[in-house]
Amino acid sequence: MTSPTVKLNSGHQMPLVGFGLWKVNNDTCADQVYNAIKSGYRLFDGACDYGNEQESGQGVARAIKEGIVKREDLFLVSKLWNSFHDGDKVEPICKKQLDDWGIDYFDLYIVHFPIALKYVDPKERYPPGFTYDGENIVPGKASIQETWTAMEGLVDKGLAKSIGISNFNGQLILDLLRYAKIVPATLQIEHHPYLTQEGLVKFAKDHDIIVTAYSSFGPQSFLELDMQQAKDTPLLFDNPTVKSIADKHSKTPAQTLLRWATQRGIAVIPKSNNQGRLAQNLDVTSFDLSTSELDEISGLNKNLRFNDPLNVSSINPCPHMRGID
Amino acid sequence: MTSPTVKLNSGHQMPLVGFGLWKVNNDTCADQVYNAIKSGYRLFDGACDYGNEQESGQGVARAIKEGIVKREDLFLVSKLWNSFHDGDKVEPICKKQLDDWGIDYFDLYIVHFPIALKYVDPKERYPPGFTYDGENIVPGKASIQETWTAMEGLVDKGLAKSIGISNFNGQLILDLLRYAKIVPATLQIEHHPYLTQEGLVKFAKDHDIIVTAYSSFGPQSFLELDMQQAKDTPLLFDNPTVKSIADKHSKTPAQTLLRWATQRGIAVIPKSNNQGRLAQNLDVTSFDLSTSELDEISGLNKNLRFNDPLNVSSINPCPHMRGID
Repeated sequence: MTSPTVKLNSGHQMPLVGFGLWKVNNDTCADQVYNAIKSGYRLFDGACDYGNEQESGQGVARAIKEGIVKREDLFLVSKLWNSFHDGDKVEPICKKQLDDWGIDYFDLYIVHFPIALKYVDPKERYPPGFTYDGENIVPGKASIQETWTAMEGLVDKGLAKSIGISNFNGQLILDLLRYAKIVPATLQIEHHPYLTQEGLVKFAKDHDIIVTAYSSFGPQSFLELDMQQAKDTPLLFDNPTVKSIADKHSKTPAQTLLRWATQRGIAVIPKSNNQGRLAQNLDVTSFDLSTSELDEISGLNKNLRFNDPLNVSSINPCPHMRGID
Repeated sequence: MTSPTVKLNSGHQMPLVGFGLWKVNNDTCADQVYNAIKSGYRLFDGACDYGNEQESGQGVARAIKEGIVKREDLFLVSKLWNSFHDGDKVEPICKKQLDDWGIDYFDLYIVHFPIALKYVDPKERYPPGFTYDGENIVPGKASIQETWTAMEGLVDKGLAKSIGISNFNGQLILDLLRYAKIVPATLQIEHHPYLTQEGLVKFAKDHDIIVTAYSSFGPQSFLELDMQQAKDTPLLFDNPTVKSIADKHSKTPAQTLLRWATQRGIAVIPKSNNQGRLAQNLDVTSFDLSTSELDEISGLNKNLRFNDPLNVSSINPCPHMRGID
């Protein structure tokens, strides 16, 4: 089984269901990617900041070498980290990331956060994380326009087939659309029934930007970060509404949550360490929820955001980033 | 009685309490401004979009002519409307607005919304409102950077002493700070106990941007627009927490709400048609709430926003602006 695809505004097809590489451990990453490909996954969502691009590339290489897939069957995604927003740093870091993967183009390359930080030489520390020197967060000088112009250059040079954004809100996207020569193909955001972001999702749709949801399971995704807010929030897997709809369709709550997103045209990138669940997560377009079931799940919204950079990183609160979600 | 002032990052002093001209009727506007000056008001917060700048200027002129104040005693604020974001349209419209007021500089000139719309010739329709032709909303081409650069030009030419922004969120401000030669002096936002915007307020404070609250009384400000959401929301004037704190200080709920803002360094711009309330609203820095009282009022927050352009205007929902708050 593979995922159905959706056509991006760039003309390329993107699988609606992929495998997210955030928090995938280095020692298991290559195997997980390899096994996911065997299970039918074609989209892998990586990033400089996840620190596992070499291992991801090794998993891909093994699958290609064994003839399970060709490069062109895959849709490989990576992201530009905050420290590389300067116009002249975008292409070099993208090339380094391509080297790490062992490939010569990304299917999609995404601005990870709308937060420009001071450049850190990859030879000094990689991935650099939020701090300039392991301690201090130092703003960068690049505007989003400077960064986006450099991102467009990647498409011109064939280093990325499509380009996108992540963690941008509507005001910033509206501004970006004023100067963009290439409209972002995708917008990746935290999205689950506790944070449905309906205005932003509609805004993206109206501008032909495909939304990709991360943390589709809500608090579940943040438990492994030992985040108190996640521990204090009832799991969506245990939510009576989600469970009862899942039971009605003989699916798991996870499948139900993913279908709630995909049926509304939103791409998803779950991850799992478990081969059975890997397959289940991919089987989320073979059944349909009713409109009232979709609405019931959407009704769980409580504007609850877990991925505020201040919460998910271990760094100290930083004036530079407060209040920008 | 006049209001204490706060020092802006531009070096100029701004009164913490002013008179807001939004929804002030044309036939009473000149008298209201004149009477407000007699009552001690020195800051008047106007805008192209309010459609009453000529009348506001008449009230000012009468007070100056009668020797009640000098121009330099006043702090006159106006705003750049969405239709004039193009770099070459900013100065001409600012000059027209100055002519309407009958003055030769604004103390503060503000970008009203981060929404660039297609230029409308003031000879065709003024103020233009949200539509290009009375019916269709047509996006403009100017980026915020283009607009802000033109705003900076107003300071260079002495047409505005300080410049600011309104209805911008943190991401867009963070980006603006990357290219701004002049940091916005103020950020005007909807702010009341149902919408405390603590992250954004902190962000502004960290960057030495003074926040001005509009709609300090919450739903009250929107009742005259016949907005259902406002009618459905319990009035802050009737809120038991607000009332009990007001009673304890022998002040009105309105004064208590304004003091809750000003005591936290947030400027306010209430309006009233009633001479007694005008004076009361100005008397909001002569008493102090306790920290726990401030916190109690802040605890009423429910992220309830009334001024979404889609709600407050009579226009049809517009894809261009959905989801951008």
